[in-house]
Amino acid sequence: MSVTTRPGGRSARVRAAVHRAVQELLAENQVEAVTLPVIANRAGVHPTTVYRRWGSLSDLLNEVATSRFSGDIVVPDTGTLREDLERWVVDVSTDLTDPDTVAIMRAALGAGPSGGCACVGDRHEQLEAILERERSRGGDVPDVQTAADTLLSPLYYRVMFTTQPMDPEWARGLVRNLLQLAESTV
Amino acid sequence: MSVTTRPGGRSARVRAAVHRAVQELLAENQVEAVTLPVIANRAGVHPTTVYRRWGSLSDLLNEVATSRFSGDIVVPDTGTLREDLERWVVDVSTDLTDPDTVAIMRAALGAGPSGGCACVGDRHEQLEAILERERSRGGDVPDVQTAADTLLSPLYYRVMFTTQPMDPEWARGLVRNLLQLAESTV
Repeated sequence: MSVTTRPGGRSARVRAAVHRAVQELLAENQVEAVTLPVIANRAGVHPTTVYRRWGSLSDLLNEVATSRFSGDIVVPDTGTLREDLERWVVDVSTDLTDPDTVAIMRAALGAGPSGGCACVGDRHEQLEAILERERSRGGDVPDVQTAADTLLSPLYYRVMFTTQPMDPEWARGLVRNLLQLAESTV
Repeated sequence: MSVTTRPGGRSARVRAAVHRAVQELLAENQVEAVTLPVIANRAGVHPTTVYRRWGSLSDLLNEVATSRFSGDIVVPDTGTLREDLERWVVDVSTDLTDPDTVAIMRAALGAGPSGGCACVGDRHEQLEAILERERSRGGDVPDVQTAADTLLSPLYYRVMFTTQPMDPEWARGLVRNLLQLAESTV
C-alpha cells in the first residue's frame, strides 16, 4: 500500500489544504470575507465536504487556531526558574508579533466563545510544566493562577486590546513581577 | 424649532437605531450572521444609509464598542488607593460578566485590528485618574503600565481566552498584587 492511499491519507490532505486556505485568506483579507464557500474554493475542495466535516466556520477556525497554537513552543530547561520563564515569555511574545498569527487569533475570537481557548493552545500546560520542573528542583514556585495572570494575560491583552508593540524587555519585566510576588508570599 | 426637527435629530435617531440593532443581533446570533444589510433591515434603515455612514462592518462595530465601553463606569473616590482600585476592578469585572457585552467584544475583536482598543474604551484613562488622585493625596503610586498589566490584562484575558468565571475575590487579589509590587519598588 503506498503512502498516498493509506486510510486517512485523503482526509489528512483535505485538512491540510483547508487549514492552509484559512491561513492564506485571513492573511490577505478582511475577516468578514472569509466564509466556508470561499475557503473551500481556495482549498480546491467541494464546499459540501467542508460543511460536512467542520459544520461551521467557528468550528473550523477553532481547529486551525488550536493546531496553530499547540506544540509550537518548546518548554525551555535552562536550570533556573527565572531563565526558563524569561525564555518562554519571550518566545510566546515573539510568536504574537506575527500579523498572520494575530489575524488567526482575531478570527477565532470573533467566531465564537471557544475561540479564545483555542488561541491559547497549550500555553497553560507549558507554564505548569515550567513551574513543576522548578518544584522538582526543590524551589518555591508561585501558583499557576498568579503565573497566568502575571505572564500570559499581559501578553495577550497587549496584542489584542492595545496598539503597543511586543517588547522583550517588557516581557522579561513580567517575569520579574511574578518572582517578586512569589517571594513576598513565601 | 421642535426637538424632532433640530439639525442632527434624524442622524442621531438613525445612529441609535443602528447601534441597538447591532446589539440585539449580536445577542441573538452567531457573529457571522450579522452583516450590514441584516443590521439595516433590523434598524428599519435603508442599507445605502448604513453603507454611506459606516463604510464597513468593522467601523460600525468599533463605534458600537467605543460607545458601549466609554463613560459607563464611574471612577470611585473612597479616600484610599486600595479601595478605589478594588471598587473599580470589581465594577469592570462585573461589566464583563454580561454575555451581551462579551458578544460585542468578540465581534469587535473579530472585525479588525482596532476592535480591541474600542472594547477597552476609557479604561486606561480611568486607571490613570485613580492613580493621579492618589498622587495628589501625596501617596506613592505604581506606574500606569504595571497597573494595566496587573489589573486590566487579567480581567480581559480571563473573559476572552479562558472559560473561568469572573470572581470579585480574585479581582480584588489583583489589586493586592499590584500594591505589593508597588511597595517593593518604592
